[in-house]
Amino acid sequence: MHTRSGPFWDGVHGRAPIPPAAATLGFAFVDADVEAGTIEVAFQATEAFTNPAGNVLGAFVAAMLYDTVGPALLATLAPDQFQSTLQMSVSFLRPVRPGRLTGKGRIVHRDGDLANLEASLVDAGGRQIATATATARVIPLASAPTAA
Amino acid sequence: MHTRSGPFWDGVHGRAPIPPAAATLGFAFVDADVEAGTIEVAFQATEAFTNPAGNVLGAFVAAMLYDTVGPALLATLAPDQFQSTLQMSVSFLRPVRPGRLTGKGRIVHRDGDLANLEASLVDAGGRQIATATATARVIPLASAPTAA
Repeated sequence: MHTRSGPFWDGVHGRAPIPPAAATLGFAFVDADVEAGTIEVAFQATEAFTNPAGNVLGAFVAAMLYDTVGPALLATLAPDQFQSTLQMSVSFLRPVRPGRLTGKGRIVHRDGDLANLEASLVDAGGRQIATATATARVIPLASAPTAA
Repeated sequence: MHTRSGPFWDGVHGRAPIPPAAATLGFAFVDADVEAGTIEVAFQATEAFTNPAGNVLGAFVAAMLYDTVGPALLATLAPDQFQSTLQMSVSFLRPVRPGRLTGKGRIVHRDGDLANLEASLVDAGGRQIATATATARVIPLASAPTAA
């Protein structure tokens, strides 16, 4: 892996604090293949994310998938670039209890500043909990404060 | 509004604790029209939900929309029923800073145990931050522990 910099890699390598939202989700970087456009990240689902049945609410499953597709693209960008997720569609497949979950993300296609992304969330037993597709736009890092 | 019971209304009326995931999102019930299939809820977006630019990460915007479409359907169900969101698609329109956000949800169509839902998330200034459509299934409350 190259020595990369920018908002994503600075966080991974401890040169910048992990963003608050990522910390709240128990986000941890696992691995990335920048050339292939793939990434693996982990999340810690806590009791604070559960519904009355004790399962992780799909709200937080969706949140974790959002924080998988974004990093898949972010990991490939220049230090002065950032990304804005325009749209995300999630399919919820199975219930999951609190614990460590793995997000596997991939850039399906990139055409100029637009990228098609996909991700799946997998539990410790390898079961697929949910999948997502997303569309994102590469933006200048300076535009991040005004991007959705 | 009728005096309703069941997992959703018991939480609204303080007869059951607010679910942990809802509490984490700062969820509060505002109003519902069960006959029309509409609901209004509120969330408190905190600094813990923000990206490096200080905006609420779309992950949490999606989470709030999930916790708007679900309640729109839940509010209309019998006490022994629950719901499982099968799919949700979110469009992210504008950035938003931490603060109180309003979720407006609606049952677009219900056909047997399947429901088509939609929601929008609006900031304190009335600006639409994101929209969602979702498909959900009505399930027996006893099946909730094994539903996604």
